Formats: sequence, C-alpha cells, structure tokens
Amino acid sequence: MASSSCSTCMMNKSSFAPRVINCKKELMFSYSSLVDKLPVHRNSFSLSADFSKSRLLLSHEKSVKWKQTQQLPLRNSIQCWAVETQSTPSFTIGKKFQLDDVIEAQQFDRDILNAIFEVAREMEKIEKNSPGSQILKGYLMATLFYEPSTRTRLSFESAMKRLGGEVLTTENAREFSSAAKGETLEDTIRTVEGYSDIIVMRHFESGAARRAATTAVIPVINAGDGPGQHPTQALLDVYTIEREIGKLDGIKVGLVGDLANGRTVRSLAYLLAKYQDVKIYFVSPGVVKMKDDIKDYLTSQGVEWEESADLMEVASKCDVVYQTRIQRERFGERTDLYEEARGKYIVDQNVLQVMEKHAVVLHPLPRLDEITVDVDADPRAAYFRQAKNGLYIRMALLKLLLVGW
Amino acid sequence: MASSSCSTCMMNKSSFAPRVINCKKELMFSYSSLVDKLPVHRNSFSLSADFSKSRLLLSHEKSVKWKQTQQLPLRNSIQCWAVETQSTPSFTIGKKFQLDDVIEAQQFDRDILNAIFEVAREMEKIEKNSPGSQILKGYLMATLFYEPSTRTRLSFESAMKRLGGEVLTTENAREFSSAAKGETLEDTIRTVEGYSDIIVMRHFESGAARRAATTAVIPVINAGDGPGQHPTQALLDVYTIEREIGKLDGIKVGLVGDLANGRTVRSLAYLLAKYQDVKIYFVSPGVVKMKDDIKDYLTSQGVEWEESADLMEVASKCDVVYQTRIQRERFGERTDLYEEARGKYIVDQNVLQVMEKHAVVLHPLPRLDEITVDVDADPRAAYFRQAKNGLYIRMALLKLLLVGW
Amino acid sequence: MASSSCSTCMMNKSSFAPRVINCKKELMFSYSSLVDKLPVHRNSFSLSADFSKSRLLLSHEKSVKWKQTQQLPLRNSIQCWAVETQSTPSFTIGKKFQLDDVIEAQQFDRDILNAIFEVAREMEKIEKNSPGSQILKGYLMATLFYEPSTRTRLSFESAMKRLGGEVLTTENAREFSSAAKGETLEDTIRTVEGYSDIIVMRHFESGAARRAATTAVIPVINAGDGPGQHPTQALLDVYTIEREIGKLDGIKVGLVGDLANGRTVRSLAYLLAKYQDVKIYFVSPGVVKMKDDIKDYLTSQGVEWEESADLMEVASKCDVVYQTRIQRERFGERTDLYEEARGKYIVDQNVLQVMEKHAVVLHPLPRLDEITVDVDADPRAAYFRQAKNGLYIRMALLKLLLVGW
Repeated sequence: MASSSCSTCMMNKSSFAPRVINCKKELMFSYSSLVDKLPVHRNSFSLSADFSKSRLLLSHEKSVKWKQTQQLPLRNSIQCWAVETQSTPSFTIGKKFQLDDVIEAQQFDRDILNAIFEVAREMEKIEKNSPGSQILKGYLMATLFYEPSTRTRLSFESAMKRLGGEVLTTENAREFSSAAKGETLEDTIRTVEGYSDIIVMRHFESGAARRAATTAVIPVINAGDGPGQHPTQALLDVYTIEREIGKLDGIKVGLVGDLANGRTVRSLAYLLAKYQDVKIYFVSPGVVKMKDDIKDYLTSQGVEWEESADLMEVASKCDVVYQTRIQRERFGERTDLYEEARGKYIVDQNVLQVMEKHAVVLHPLPRLDEITVDVDADPRAAYFRQAKNGLYIRMALLKLLLVGW
Repeated sequence: MASSSCSTCMMNKSSFAPRVINCKKELMFSYSSLVDKLPVHRNSFSLSADFSKSRLLLSHEKSVKWKQTQQLPLRNSIQCWAVETQSTPSFTIGKKFQLDDVIEAQQFDRDILNAIFEVAREMEKIEKNSPGSQILKGYLMATLFYEPSTRTRLSFESAMKRLGGEVLTTENAREFSSAAKGETLEDTIRTVEGYSDIIVMRHFESGAARRAATTAVIPVINAGDGPGQHPTQALLDVYTIEREIGKLDGIKVGLVGDLANGRTVRSLAYLLAKYQDVKIYFVSPGVVKMKDDIKDYLTSQGVEWEESADLMEVASKCDVVYQTRIQRERFGERTDLYEEARGKYIVDQNVLQVMEKHAVVLHPLPRLDEITVDVDADPRAAYFRQAKNGLYIRMALLKLLLVGW
Repeated sequence: MASSSCSTCMMNKSSFAPRVINCKKELMFSYSSLVDKLPVHRNSFSLSADFSKSRLLLSHEKSVKWKQTQQLPLRNSIQCWAVETQSTPSFTIGKKFQLDDVIEAQQFDRDILNAIFEVAREMEKIEKNSPGSQILKGYLMATLFYEPSTRTRLSFESAMKRLGGEVLTTENAREFSSAAKGETLEDTIRTVEGYSDIIVMRHFESGAARRAATTAVIPVINAGDGPGQHPTQALLDVYTIEREIGKLDGIKVGLVGDLANGRTVRSLAYLLAKYQDVKIYFVSPGVVKMKDDIKDYLTSQGVEWEESADLMEVASKCDVVYQTRIQRERFGERTDLYEEARGKYIVDQNVLQVMEKHAVVLHPLPRLDEITVDVDADPRAAYFRQAKNGLYIRMALLKLLLVGW
C-alpha cells in the first residue's frame, strides 16, 4: 500500500473493524469537510459516493491504474481510485505518525524511530507476559518469499502469531507461484491482497518492495529486496543499540567485516546519521571496504567517521562492535581472496579483553567463525538478544500497520 | 469421503460436535426406523451395534475394502463398514442438499449451484464485517498439494482461516512425502485423514481426487487433478458471472484463447449448459480449438454455440469475455506455433471499446499479455474480483462440508 | 533444553503463565530453602538475584557456555547460568516425572511410559470430544525439519493445533536456512528458540537432537535424527500395542522385515525389554538381520528372543506382527538383493489366517507391498490406528513439555 496524503481518515481507520483495513486507501470524509481537506498540490482526484453507507469516498488519481476497493458486481454502487504516492511512505498525524508500508530504512526519521521503539518495548512486555495476546486476532499476514530466508520468515510469522494473528506462508514463491508462468509481481500482489490483510515480501530484485506497495491496497513490509533494502533489520539493529547501550546520541560504533556488500551495515550507517555526535569506525579487509556513497553521506550529515585497520584499537574505543560475515558468494572463483578477507578481523577473547564493560558485540547472523564461539558466554555478546529484538520490532510494525496506535 | 445414501443421519450430523464429522459415513438409525430407511437397491449392507452408545450403526458394503471408523483397540466394541458410492457425490435432504466431497463440476446441478452461491454471498459479508469469525473454529484442513499451485493453496488456506479454522500445509507432497518412497495415494490419505477434518488435494493425475474421496472418511475437495477437474475454479467462474452480470439465464459468453487445453473453459462450458438460453462463442487460434466433446455436449443440452475468428465482433455481443492464457508448455518444441497462437487474440482497449457497458472481462489468472495491463483500470476488468470470489466460494464449500447448513 | 536437577522449582513452573516456560532452566528458590536444596554433587553453581522480582535465581554451571535467560539490555539486572546435564533428561517429582526434552527412547522407564500413555488416552478423548481445546493456546511450536518427513511433521503440527497451539513451519531447513551459509546448529537453535516455545527437530545427523536440547532453553523434541533415534515413533508403537492387546507384560512380538536398518524396530526392541516376560521373534531376510547389539541387550535384560525364517509359524504364535519396509536405498546398486529381500516376507491373507483373533499387524508406514492391500480390511490390521496413535502420543508430549501435568 502506498501512503495516502490525508490524515484524519487514517485516524478513523484504526477504530474500524479489522477487515476494513483493506480499504485503507479510501479516504473518507463527511461532505462538509471535503473542500478544506483537499490537498491542493494534487493534480487530480476522484470523488465518489458509497450510497449504501451514506458517506463520501475521496481519493486521488495519480496514475492511469484504476483500482476498485470493493467487489461491486452489478456496479450500481461506487468506484474509488487508488492513490499512488511514491514520495511519502509515512507521515505524522497530530503527534503520531501514520505508517502505511515499510519499504526502506530512509523512510524513518528520528521521531518515527523513537515511536516504533516505544511500541517495540510494549511488545516485549506482551511477549513475556501475555502469551495469549489477541491484538491482531482476525488478521491474516501473507509471507510472500521469492527467495528463502528462514530466519526472517520465522521472525515475522512468530511476531504475527504472538499477537494472535494468522499467517499464509509461501516459502518459495519464485519457483512455485504463477511467477514461473510469467505472471507479473503486480498481478500476484493483486491476487494475494485479496486473501490477506498485510503482505510481508522478500524478493530478489531491488525495488520490488516498492512496486508491491504501490500496487497493493493493503500494507506491504519489505523483508529484503535483493541488493536493495532490508529495513526491519536496520530497525532492529538501532533498537538493539539503544536497548543495550541506553542511548544513541554520542555513541561510537565499529562496523567490521564485509562493508562493501552488506546492506545491513549500509542501512545501519544511514540510520545512525540521524543521531547526534555519533562516531563510526570502518574496519574491513581491503577488498570489501565501505563504499564512498555512504562515506559521503555521513560527511554531508556531519557524522564523524574513520577507516581503521586495527580492530583492537577500535574495539577498545567503541560502544558497539558490529561484526559481519564475509560473504563467500561475492568472491566467485577467488577463494584465495575470500579466505584472506575472512580470517582478517575476528572477534574473539582478545577483542573482548580490550572492550569496555558496557560495550556490546552485535552481528546480523548467521555467523561463521568471524566471532569465536567462546565469545557467546560473555554478557557483552548481544547478537542473540539482537535476533530476539527482531521479533519485537516486527511485532511493533505489524501492530502499527494493522491496527495503528 | 464418498457420499452416503441415507439422509436423516446427515441432518443430525450438523448439530454434532465438530470432531464427530470424522464418523460421517456411519449411518445412524434408531432400530425402529431401520427397515423402511433401507435402500432396497443396495446389494449388501452391514448392520452393527455400538453397545456403548446404545445405538445402531448401519452402513453399506460395496467394495471389499473394510474401514473402521473408530480406533477400537480391544475390539470389544463394534466395527462399521465404509460406504463406497461412485454415483452420487451429493444429494438433497429436504430442501437442502448434503455435500460430502467436491470432486468435479458435473456433480452440481442448478439448485445446488444456487445454494452454494447463496452461502458464498454470506461468506462475503463475513469476510468484510466479521474478521474474527469462528464458524470453523476447532476444524483442521490439510492442504495436500502434489504439484505446486500457490494461488489455489493460498485461496483455500485464507478461506479456512477467515472462518477461524486451522491449516496443515504440504506444499510439495510429491517430492517430500512418503509418496517418494512408493506409498499409494490411498495410504497417504488414510494417514492424513487421521490428522485433519478435511483434505484439500491437488494432484497431477486425473482421477486422483475421486480415489482420495473414496478412501477418506472425511470430506475431500479437489483443488485440481491434472488434466482432469478443477471444480472450485468452475464454481467461482459461474459465481462471478452471476455477481457481475446479475443473471446466468440468457447470457452470452465468449470463451477466448486456449480452448483445447484449458480445463477451466471446458468446465465453465459444462456448467453454463445448466442455464437457459445461454449462447457461447469460441474464439481461439486454430491449434487450440475447443474439442468436439464439449461442442457435442452443448448441442445435446440445447445450448447455442458458434466458433468465430473475430474477437471484436464477439466482444461487442457478449456479456462476458472469458480470456485464457495460451499455455506454452503445450507446444513443446514448436515455439513458433506458440508465438503465433499467443499473439492472435488480445483483450486490449480496442476490445473494451466495442464491449457493452455492463459486460465484463474474466480470466482465470495468471495472465501474461493476453489482456493488456491498461485494461485493468476499466471497471469491466473483473478478473481480480473473480480471484477474490474464489475465496468466497471456498469459504462456502468449507463451511458446507464441515458444519453443513 | 537439557534437564535441570532440582525439582520444586519445576512444580512451580507449571502454574506459571505460559511464556515463562522460556526460563525453565532458572531454578527459583526462596532464600531460606537454598542451602538444603543445593545439589552437593555439583561442582559449581552460580547464585544471582533478580531484584525486580525479589527472588533468587540459582543455577548450575557445568560448561563454559554462558546463557542469559532474559534480555537485559543495560545489564543492571541479573544474569543467570544455564544448566547442562547430559545424563538425566527426565526425572520424577513426587509421583510425577518432569519431562524437559524428548531425545531418545532410552530416556523413558516403565513408569514414565505409563504416565505418558495415561496422558495420551486423555488426549484421545480431547481430540474426539473437544475440538476447540485451548490447552496450549498461546504456545508456539517450531518444526525445524532438516530433512523432509511430511507424515511426522503433519502429525506434530496436528497435535499442536488440536490443543489450540500455533506452529511455525520449516519444511526444508537444510536447503533454505542459514545452515546453507554455514551456520552451526547451535546458532540456529539459539535464534529459533527466541521465536517459539518448543522446537520439534528432524535432522540428518545422529546426535543432532541432543546438541539442540543442550543448547536450547526451551524444550526440544527429537523427530528423528538420521540413523539415530526417533523416540516418538517408539512411544507410539508401544502405546499401540498396549491399546490393541491390552497389556505389555507377557506379550509375544514378531519383528519382520528390515531389522538391520530400521531404527523403528531397534527402538521398539529396546522399549519392550522394560516389560516382563516379553518374547521377541526376529524374521528377516539374511542381508538385513537384527544386529548383535540389540540381541545382546535383550539377553542382558533377560528378554527371550529367537530368530526364525518361518513367518507363518511366528505369526501363529504372536500377539503382534510388526512388519517393516525393506529400504531400497540401503542396497545401493544391488537391486537383485533388494528384490530378493523385499519379496521374502509378505503379510497377506495367508498370514492373517494363522494369526490369532486377538493379534494385530503393525507397520510404521509408509508400506509398499510388504503388507498386501487386502489385509487392510481385517480388523487386526492396526497400522492406520497406529499412525493415529502417533497424534495422541505427540499431543501428550507437547502438553507435558509445555504445561506439565
């Protein structure tokens, strides 16, 4: 679901019966309030009346794509048009923001992050104390995975079920679905949205999540789209730092390992730039250095960063040592380069010894041997807590997208 | 589950506790009513007493296959025998019919179709207004898919969950299950029926669904068996026409595309023959023309039909233009023939322009480019509503099979 | 989850809110009761206080592996240590035993078996009469299958859902999960346990289940680990014999077919040795004879056994004829040997004729033609009832592991 541009309707939405969420893009106004609510910057809109419900439906037409929000077989009732907005996937209503889709880390500003983290902490309490939570009872999530990611899929499905919701699973959409017969992603989304209330999609193509969100009337969460984005991982990383260190302003973070290919560290760097006085250290083998676009971005945002070849020195100064896996698949035939890169920066007992007592080691998982197993026993090894935080972040997002605040 | 031949017991059934559905084939009578209820045309039956429940069990033995309906470990209680009836998969009780399995489109007559459609409309209301419906709470559906069909599977699973039921999924039964070790379908069904209350099966062999239904004590729904039947697709097609056009008698339907291989259009033609004054146009490339068996059947039923090479002319006259995908896999090496057939009849803006305002375009999906994307925006593009109707039809069938009227 | 060594805490556990099960390894005592509860045979333990809950946490440290039981982001609260106990996966509390994991058939003694069977019979009643049971409502089971076993998976998932619980499914963990990227089983378990309350694992490596249980804070059930164990199959076999024959002491059991490779018959022989006056007959083709380790074990336990080449004679004497499939995959290229072995001992009408009226035929399924299809109709063909009993045994184990007695 792409975002809508009017606010009051959305506030109404959250008090509706769950299934009405399907019609989220319908903007509902009483007639009297129509004129002044009209977003003047829009070049077109359609207005139509749902006579059976004695209310008006307003929505915007930006593309030629027409979308019925209800099945109106005899078409004696009213149509409404889908809004397509590429620009603003989220926006605030009063003091709360309205979340329509989760597509990329960049869509979140500091306030929105704080708000999501607050809900995530509520979710943590619910998961621990209210096993039979029914917050999302009656809601159905479709996990549409075009490439496998068991960890991410289980995390989302657990999140949904911990809140009393239900799940439709497609573990291998690429091979099995109509996609194999040549169906477009858009057509698949239009069908699946008829069967569910929210779509969690993993895809192998960058930009697929945005295409899905633009098509769908229901909310879409990007669970990773190829080399593109994996926004829920970025959110859980920042959430974990705040939970572990107690703050985000003023922290020092060492990003270690494959900084060239890991979308995780790239998204994390991007999000950290939203906080004050952050210092970032890049520690990576020469072949997988952080790329210039992120460095330039950090500089433009006034974030201090430096590259270092000395993991011990960086570890001794950082609040967070964020280790990543060197991805073999990036090296092709050059297994010699892979082996060299892989062994270079290992987090082990020696690194732990120089780290501060309050500092933590993070890792997006799975890990191979870039963190030695004996590190697990140290309280500062926070990577399994980090994985668990993914559950809370996803619970929070599902709640916000489906029932709002 | 094959159908039973006595009625009153079934009426009792629907007021039972859900799990008793497992014993649906047991025909229960009070002794006094036994003689006159006895179907005289049966060549054999067995009568046995369940002493613990002080009632009599009557059932028929048509094959040598013996079936226990309860686990009777010490065998001091009673056995009963499975009824096997190939001929009448459904029948009426008073004004209502009793649905035992859904195997093929031919099992439904006009009255039964109307009755199912009525329930489907109720389901539509439930889906929209009662997100937490618990109609099928406590019931468990097993989706046993021997070949992948994500769309169909999700539709059934959504239907079950929208009604509060639960699902056991086997997305790839052919590769994974005991079938790979050589187990017969019958043995698999006997095991799976012990774990669930209803089986939805997709299979690659024509006739597999009937074999499963004959074996199973619980209801079986055919979700497509190879080149054979896909009855729920046929039902949703007819339901969609009625919902979109408002009637079925007197309609004109153009069937377009691959009419030789598409079981969808074959089943649809069959079902349309049950209505009055229907006119059917066949529009297809020469290599995939509608086969004679259907043409002969329509003629025998007094249904007017004609073949045409002029899509524009047909479209201008029809209430329904039912487009289908040319299936590449049917052409083998002859990609030249495929390409030629594929491009021949496209539903696009030109076709829309000649279609009547009240007419609709249907398609079983997935589509490639036999309907151009710009058609989607037209209110007459009904194929995504059609897909959604599949949900309502499947909800209706699940309700009817599991809890009855 | 490995077992704990103190009992009273566990009794408290079962009255806790469900999610607290995650902390099962925390042993909670009031301070006053600390000293005398202390297991003196332990070489180390850690004691820590959870200030927020005004209670003491005691646990044991046996390995270097340190385990936090709660996410303690700022680490101003308390840590606790995981207990690792290889030796006693279950033990009694008062008259009841405490079940922590189900890893191997050997972990159960006669009393525990009886207790589990008692619960299984309760489960049978629940499955038949209480379709909407909510005993495990709010609990989440993860089925982590590293090799496919549709039958076993569906049985566990059905068991969970019949009790109102929810399921996270991984049908093909080996191919899809992070395992493909080189993640250790231990790391996968640590992640998955954050998303669920119990793990049911099938693995291709012997010993994998124990490794998982040692790692996990939550209970683990072994659903088969390679050539190792498949304890729930062993339990359901013994349960079925008791349900069908009415006793276990004094029974005569013929084990037929592939006795060399079938872990089923090996486990069954092991469990039968726990009962009095049992007599076991081994009937198998020469190439797949029962191995000496089991024979020696039976002898050491005073169990009478003999090998026989005469199925008819054995069948005429036995209470239970336990037939198994000759596994083609064990014969490699030697299909001649396979075909010879396969046809040698078939249970058919001839065998039935010599069997006693009270005797039964069992088979772990799937079967090929080692039992002819016409045997199915005989009341003594108990193999489908046996499969169904798997459901009750698994319901019982899930209940015991998650909510206790």
